[in-house]
Amino acid sequence: MDWNSYSIRTDLALEAHQLAGVEQGGTEIPGVDVEQTDESGIHISRMHIKDMNGSRIMNKMMGHYLTFDVPELRYKDPELQHKVAEVFARELKGFLRLREKDSVLVVGLGNWNVTPDALGPLVVEKLFVTRHLFLHMPDVVKEGFRPVAAVAPGVLGITGVETSEIVKGIVEHIQPDLVIAIDALASRSLERVNTTIQITDTGITPGAGVGNRRKGLNIQTLGVPVVAIGVPTVVDAVTIAHDTIDLLIQRIERDVPGNTCAQLFENFTEQEKKQLIHELLQPLGQNLMVTPKEIDTFIEDIASVVANGLNVALHDAITMEDAAMYLQ
Amino acid sequence: MDWNSYSIRTDLALEAHQLAGVEQGGTEIPGVDVEQTDESGIHISRMHIKDMNGSRIMNKMMGHYLTFDVPELRYKDPELQHKVAEVFARELKGFLRLREKDSVLVVGLGNWNVTPDALGPLVVEKLFVTRHLFLHMPDVVKEGFRPVAAVAPGVLGITGVETSEIVKGIVEHIQPDLVIAIDALASRSLERVNTTIQITDTGITPGAGVGNRRKGLNIQTLGVPVVAIGVPTVVDAVTIAHDTIDLLIQRIERDVPGNTCAQLFENFTEQEKKQLIHELLQPLGQNLMVTPKEIDTFIEDIASVVANGLNVALHDAITMEDAAMYLQ
Amino acid sequence: MDWNSYSIRTDLALEAHQLAGVEQGGTEIPGVDVEQTDESGIHISRMHIKDMNGSRIMNKMMGHYLTFDVPELRYKDPELQHKVAEVFARELKGFLRLREKDSVLVVGLGNWNVTPDALGPLVVEKLFVTRHLFLHMPDVVKEGFRPVAAVAPGVLGITGVETSEIVKGIVEHIQPDLVIAIDALASRSLERVNTTIQITDTGITPGAGVGNRRKGLNIQTLGVPVVAIGVPTVVDAVTIAHDTIDLLIQRIERDVPGNTCAQLFENFTEQEKKQLIHELLQPLGQNLMVTPKEIDTFIEDIASVVANGLNVALHDAITMEDAAMYLQ
Amino acid sequence: MDWNSYSIRTDLALEAHQLAGVEQGGTEIPGVDVEQTDESGIHISRMHIKDMNGSRIMNKMMGHYLTFDVPELRYKDPELQHKVAEVFARELKGFLRLREKDSVLVVGLGNWNVTPDALGPLVVEKLFVTRHLFLHMPDVVKEGFRPVAAVAPGVLGITGVETSEIVKGIVEHIQPDLVIAIDALASRSLERVNTTIQITDTGITPGAGVGNRRKGLNIQTLGVPVVAIGVPTVVDAVTIAHDTIDLLIQRIERDVPGNTCAQLFENFTEQEKKQLIHELLQPLGQNLMVTPKEIDTFIEDIASVVANGLNVALHDAITMEDAAMYLQ
Repeated sequence: MDWNSYSIRTDLALEAHQLAGVEQGGTEIPGVDVEQTDESGIHISRMHIKDMNGSRIMNKMMGHYLTFDVPELRYKDPELQHKVAEVFARELKGFLRLREKDSVLVVGLGNWNVTPDALGPLVVEKLFVTRHLFLHMPDVVKEGFRPVAAVAPGVLGITGVETSEIVKGIVEHIQPDLVIAIDALASRSLERVNTTIQITDTGITPGAGVGNRRKGLNIQTLGVPVVAIGVPTVVDAVTIAHDTIDLLIQRIERDVPGNTCAQLFENFTEQEKKQLIHELLQPLGQNLMVTPKEIDTFIEDIASVVANGLNVALHDAITMEDAAMYLQ
Repeated sequence: MDWNSYSIRTDLALEAHQLAGVEQGGTEIPGVDVEQTDESGIHISRMHIKDMNGSRIMNKMMGHYLTFDVPELRYKDPELQHKVAEVFARELKGFLRLREKDSVLVVGLGNWNVTPDALGPLVVEKLFVTRHLFLHMPDVVKEGFRPVAAVAPGVLGITGVETSEIVKGIVEHIQPDLVIAIDALASRSLERVNTTIQITDTGITPGAGVGNRRKGLNIQTLGVPVVAIGVPTVVDAVTIAHDTIDLLIQRIERDVPGNTCAQLFENFTEQEKKQLIHELLQPLGQNLMVTPKEIDTFIEDIASVVANGLNVALHDAITMEDAAMYLQ
Repeated sequence: MDWNSYSIRTDLALEAHQLAGVEQGGTEIPGVDVEQTDESGIHISRMHIKDMNGSRIMNKMMGHYLTFDVPELRYKDPELQHKVAEVFARELKGFLRLREKDSVLVVGLGNWNVTPDALGPLVVEKLFVTRHLFLHMPDVVKEGFRPVAAVAPGVLGITGVETSEIVKGIVEHIQPDLVIAIDALASRSLERVNTTIQITDTGITPGAGVGNRRKGLNIQTLGVPVVAIGVPTVVDAVTIAHDTIDLLIQRIERDVPGNTCAQLFENFTEQEKKQLIHELLQPLGQNLMVTPKEIDTFIEDIASVVANGLNVALHDAITMEDAAMYLQ
Repeated sequence: MDWNSYSIRTDLALEAHQLAGVEQGGTEIPGVDVEQTDESGIHISRMHIKDMNGSRIMNKMMGHYLTFDVPELRYKDPELQHKVAEVFARELKGFLRLREKDSVLVVGLGNWNVTPDALGPLVVEKLFVTRHLFLHMPDVVKEGFRPVAAVAPGVLGITGVETSEIVKGIVEHIQPDLVIAIDALASRSLERVNTTIQITDTGITPGAGVGNRRKGLNIQTLGVPVVAIGVPTVVDAVTIAHDTIDLLIQRIERDVPGNTCAQLFENFTEQEKKQLIHELLQPLGQNLMVTPKEIDTFIEDIASVVANGLNVALHDAITMEDAAMYLQ
């Protein structure tokens, strides 16, 4: 039994930082810098995991993490969506630091037959793609555009071939200067589902994502830098069960006078908790996701925000004013 | 606050019967007949809720419920799938008792942009439809077929029109002798997700289904008999939270000697449980579903079983041997 | 044999007018007013078929036709597309003359499994729909919006039920003040494929559209006014064959001196032409469409233009500046 | 101007043979063997282009071509479809001559957003895929199955990356013993649209297919043998125009006495014909396809026949009797 898969899980560095902070009894984690700002209802967090120690404590790869947290995105407000797209585009551009002629391959991970896992393919579908124009019709390409290709190999993944094998093959043939991987994530907290976007230069970690990607996509495996853009669209059922137990215990401890409780839960170890959750979620176990019933409209909206931001960040010739014309 | 929506929920009469039985302290419920048989790994349960009393206790409509429970369906075994399709077709035919010339409208409920809610539209897509042939090319229709139309109004429902309004409009115009409604359901237990099929002559109850249909589809609202075929594809997150709490309390009661526990949970009423779950699942609340990550392949498979069974049950000319040729 | 289906066909009043004009030996047709303007590369034509005589000559219903002809749309220019969306929105608003509280049902005709016939469903998918908000959450609806519902019954049409029956049923239940029907059309000329938009207050004529809708949708059949918006996405193969023959005969007449030709084609009547085309196109006959291989990107683009224009024209609160945020 | 693209075109060796035969004034073409048989309404043709001479005359690659021609497939007869699937499976198995442990990669070419070009992706979607089972769950794989992977790179092709680059990358990584490429083709004759299946060991020729694949997929480019399976789903508009001209000229020649005609068409060269067609089809030119309006149902049906045949031909453990259970 792989008891690890019965732990609380988050693909967000921001949440991992909070969890680690609580365990450490403070908000400071050695080897990790965090800077927070607020802008028009968007909480922006810039995190830098600087060394192996910080990486180990947080259980996240060393590198930079840029997170946009927008609780109000839940209430389908077109104006806020527009604002988020704008800020996201501006920050992404700064994060990428592309040189003028750099070419980019966007990889939309995930399975488009499973709605909460379809973010990557949806973004790819909406993206403005130009690489073929540079190759076959160079005269029609105006100043201010760069070669951008985009693939959604996840549908391939379900047909007997590992996503990473496909991406590796394509990268070797088209040799982009940068890979940008888009993926649907699992967050620890329901509040962050569909309201948070994370950008990181660490690439994709094996085991992350809604569908548990088996292998990583990063500079080690692909040979080119990989920036990952992720949005949590689910919480693991295991996480929800953990939270239920913790909340109940906390409630009992609050309600019950004296030290009866200390005795009560003395022997209720992390391992016992996992066994209880395993029992609870069988026969489907750690393969269960919790997601809102309206996931279809949320994911459509956030895919537009991401695709729009990518179009603006990748091409100098596209401004937020005319970005809508380039959304496919 | 509608605390009812924070109760344990099941759309399956079989599970409602078990829940009610436990509360009643036995398996006998007045006003309800149940008959169970087993056939090649398929548990078949025939339930008849005969009076208002039974209906009230079970919180299900009066009528007949035929349930197929096949735990092994989880392990994608083509031979078992074939066997289930066969038994389902035979039993459905018996359940429907159609007269030779009866025409049928199949309604695939649900939203095909949300994978676990897409069962209805998927079945409709796979069904062999004949009504237009009877109308426009009566000569090509051979003996042994009946007029069958099929609609998937759920995509319409997400565009500003209530599903029931659309179905009512269509029923009034084409006047079928029977409506068969297909819907994805919520079960109480994870074990039943994607492994159970329920047929009932009560039609669709308001509030049932993955997407919480607002209004019922039944003989009262449509003016023609409605048979509903449902498959649980999700469990409500609320239900999982309830089960976590119950399992934890049960575990503590087992582990803790004496009557400390009795005192402990004395005041932990049903209402407090719901409040705790409400807190736990906010801000998304009762609108969360728990579903397997591989929901896409499960739902494809079970939609084939249902569509195949319908083709055989509706048309005398289609046998299990040649049924595959009629699957669209 | 229905030889009529072997005639040259156009769903565009503009083309019917040109054809009739040529036959009449001039551009004036009694009972028909035409006014042409040009604006930023968009040819706008306002036609009014005022009486039965004009209607008979042109073989089009009496009413108003507003046509936008933009040959350069072929060259996927985002700026031109934006300009067309703007002009289209402004003119559509003027054409509709809606009162403040009028409710609208948008009907996307066509089969979304056949790319050149998918315009209607695509527009419906992209439209901003509000009717359910007015019904269920009236507080969240701001000033300047009206109730808009949208359905795509064509997928239903292929499942044994006539599109017009479904639309009639829905109209009776939700009682909109206006129906707007979107449809893919057949033009006479390849130049107009994907570059022309027609608005008319005559509704949908039986037999028009890519998939040959069997019945009309108009004030007579639905009981409410119907505005139709159409874009030609195909030319009938029959039309191409006619044109080939005419062009060849014309070429021979030009090349051959004397009156040999007069004799030659003396006996080559319209009926003989149709027989030749029938022979040529068998066994598929009049059911063949000619369409560009890149029809998928064209139809996506023009569906965005139409959906965008509808959003702006239907809701005072949506301006061209923020229209992109409302595109689904 | 590339006048070649204004020639009559066929992707079928069978039709190329007939065309070449006519030009040669007989049915014998040097370097080409043909053998024809009939079985239950299915015309089977086995052609072997043995040398460069035959290849040059026929304008087709050297190799074997196996063609199934079933005119009655047009009339959607489930029993005939079943028979075709059976014969196709048997013959395909013989054609492939796979060794017991050979692994196979099936490549579904084409763009699934354009209905007549979607054959490849549709077959891939329906195929029974096993490679991942061999890799990750070898115990569950029974005797009689082989590793089969399947990809549909065409959707990628529209996103800036050449299909052949993607396939090459995948082949290098997973190293199959055989590639089977599925593609929608253009035929010369309308009769063959949706009624013919061609199998060949020459792979995919550059420029063939509905969407004009730019590069070939064959043993030279991929390094492994490539079998191509194709079904014509369109006729080029250029071909229809050619046929119209030829039929008209033939009719005139029949009707007009004496040798007026000889003089008349004396100067009407092949080049002039192409110029006339170019003029006729502008501005869309050689990029126009002619296809039936019901292409969606035809292509679904024939994709099932092909996927079914592949399942049976690739896995000894799958027989025609239980093949339906393996169709996805």
